Amino acid sequence: MRNPVITLLTDFGLRDPYVGSMKGVILRINPWCTLVDITHQVTPHDLKEGAFTLANAFSTFPQGTIHIAVVDPGVGSPRKPILLVTPRYFFIGPDNGIFTFVVKREKVKKAVALTNSKYFLPQVSTTFHGRDIFAPVAAHLSLGVKPKAFGHVMDSWTEFLVPEPDKKEGRLIGEVFHIDTFGNLTSNIDGRQLFQFSKRHPFMVRIGKRTIQGLRKGYWEGKKNEPIALIGSGGFLEISLREGNAQRLLKVGRGDRVLVQICK
Amino acid sequence: MRNPVITLLTDFGLRDPYVGSMKGVILRINPWCTLVDITHQVTPHDLKEGAFTLANAFSTFPQGTIHIAVVDPGVGSPRKPILLVTPRYFFIGPDNGIFTFVVKREKVKKAVALTNSKYFLPQVSTTFHGRDIFAPVAAHLSLGVKPKAFGHVMDSWTEFLVPEPDKKEGRLIGEVFHIDTFGNLTSNIDGRQLFQFSKRHPFMVRIGKRTIQGLRKGYWEGKKNEPIALIGSGGFLEISLREGNAQRLLKVGRGDRVLVQICK
Amino acid sequence: MRNPVITLLTDFGLRDPYVGSMKGVILRINPWCTLVDITHQVTPHDLKEGAFTLANAFSTFPQGTIHIAVVDPGVGSPRKPILLVTPRYFFIGPDNGIFTFVVKREKVKKAVALTNSKYFLPQVSTTFHGRDIFAPVAAHLSLGVKPKAFGHVMDSWTEFLVPEPDKKEGRLIGEVFHIDTFGNLTSNIDGRQLFQFSKRHPFMVRIGKRTIQGLRKGYWEGKKNEPIALIGSGGFLEISLREGNAQRLLKVGRGDRVLVQICK
Repeated sequence: MRNPVITLLTDFGLRDPYVGSMKGVILRINPWCTLVDITHQVTPHDLKEGAFTLANAFSTFPQGTIHIAVVDPGVGSPRKPILLVTPRYFFIGPDNGIFTFVVKREKVKKAVALTNSKYFLPQVSTTFHGRDIFAPVAAHLSLGVKPKAFGHVMDSWTEFLVPEPDKKEGRLIGEVFHIDTFGNLTSNIDGRQLFQFSKRHPFMVRIGKRTIQGLRKGYWEGKKNEPIALIGSGGFLEISLREGNAQRLLKVGRGDRVLVQICK
Repeated sequence: MRNPVITLLTDFGLRDPYVGSMKGVILRINPWCTLVDITHQVTPHDLKEGAFTLANAFSTFPQGTIHIAVVDPGVGSPRKPILLVTPRYFFIGPDNGIFTFVVKREKVKKAVALTNSKYFLPQVSTTFHGRDIFAPVAAHLSLGVKPKAFGHVMDSWTEFLVPEPDKKEGRLIGEVFHIDTFGNLTSNIDGRQLFQFSKRHPFMVRIGKRTIQGLRKGYWEGKKNEPIALIGSGGFLEISLREGNAQRLLKVGRGDRVLVQICK
Repeated sequence: MRNPVITLLTDFGLRDPYVGSMKGVILRINPWCTLVDITHQVTPHDLKEGAFTLANAFSTFPQGTIHIAVVDPGVGSPRKPILLVTPRYFFIGPDNGIFTFVVKREKVKKAVALTNSKYFLPQVSTTFHGRDIFAPVAAHLSLGVKPKAFGHVMDSWTEFLVPEPDKKEGRLIGEVFHIDTFGNLTSNIDGRQLFQFSKRHPFMVRIGKRTIQGLRKGYWEGKKNEPIALIGSGGFLEISLREGNAQRLLKVGRGDRVLVQICK
């Protein structure tokens, strides 16, 4: 008996009937699957936030897991519903860039445009493809239906432009890419990139109006009210405040500049 | 081995131990059931919101699903705990109207007042029937206990008055019935009712200080900052704003008037 | 086949990839376990709130349930990760007092410092032990690995000081210990303690600027805008407001005084 995991990531929130409806549809088709929420609290319509959150969670799951991601401001428009198959996972959602970070880490073996309405709900609304297309396709896939059966194979898919850190005049210039519940500021500067740049020289990190010297190993090394820099659990340079909220202290937002500079 | 689905809908929120306690009680009695949250973020004591959310999610679930709904300002009062049996589902909760929309869509085959304390927790508090009555009854029901065993059969149950749209002087007058996380405004005007009223004549929708011409098929047909009308995924007339929040733009609330008028 | 329950309680919130990552790790090791969220909305770093919430939910779960609790401001510091074994349950988390209330109610049969990295993820970060240590240890435990295998047995563990009610000049002086989603104010005065104190004499409860006469049985006995006292579902003296929010009416916070006095 197949007992696969299906995860859900949406911007639907938890107040409305939307998430429950998707789960009902899935369980009616495959009552033996295990449903796991990644999050439903992506900021409404914020594709990049959704893509980032998915990228930081998907790879912990068992081989064969089916990841559904629905942040879909273009629902009902000509944007395609797609299925991406990678060596370890399946990804189902709108072809609007939501899998941009995933495909940087996982090789796409097959991309399928979901066009076979045999696997949709009998009536497909124009406003809720999560319930009417993505949920039933995921459930049928979890029962062993082959990816090709869901539609036609595609050569390409949509990715959005990811802001990459810039090297300029001996400085590494990145930006705040995500702010978590604790107020930790995750930049787009990868730990390996940082070490290549600094080559073991001491460096400082500039953000907002603050300058932070070097890296700490963990939050507990910080002092109260003194922001620290460290490599976060996702592998990126992060600015944090011990038992506090770095965002509130530094008053920076997503997209704000994070600058690394070698000490002279 | 029985592997039924039990859903939970409450106004308990997700911060407190209440939801976890109910799930613990259920799993201690039937460790094989599948638990699904519909929502726990109904506005505290807001029966109508809870009833609406349940009505828009329950019918996607597999046959035999047990739906628990606890929005229960009268907990511990003489209001009865009940079980409603319909051809496809079971509904468990207080007899206070929480199933008003459900019984408009599903025929009630049997209604049982939950009086048999054999299926309650040994100690029943006056403040938390979700844990002490509804959870254990649902769990025993999921193990195959017959509905009649839980108490005595009733002839009637409580429903609240549902505001129905009014036809007056060639206008269809409804109201905003639900506002979702995205700010979409769902009215109480059913799509079929709207088409019977308009008989394919062009019409306009008035809400707040705005007039909207005709229906769109989906959110993506709208322009930025221009509210649109469409038939939402639940089948009702909905006012929305593409990639925006119609509630914030229109400054309307639940109960505010939605008026449909044939164009002359 | 082992099908145990693993619960999660954290202060991670539901927006970020943290909770999903922990669940992915667990399911990769034991795909047959049942995952239940107690809460992820503990106020960030608020150990006492987390300890209270866990204490009010853990004992409803089936024998053998593994409870993970991660409110962990000292993550990565020398504070130890631990496993507590009681006659009915397993508790996994940082040794920082998060299990203070649990060990008042359950006898600890064995305490193990989690030092055997064989059961951790291959790379342990300094900022996310929930994913790298607690989740994989819980999953291996659920597969039948013996507690001793995870590290070395300890004689003691950390507890924080719990504020106990004080008897002084014929008055019982407690404090507000928890405020729930509905605004109900739970004190640290146990129902049994209250009855021993009052010995069936009539008494009054003072809180904020209000005086409340005697106890009610349930919320519904209250009048609108009149706070009542009752014994809540957790067994403690609670101040509530029927279909309202006692916290907002009384303007009190956690730690504020709750005073019980015999009527003369």
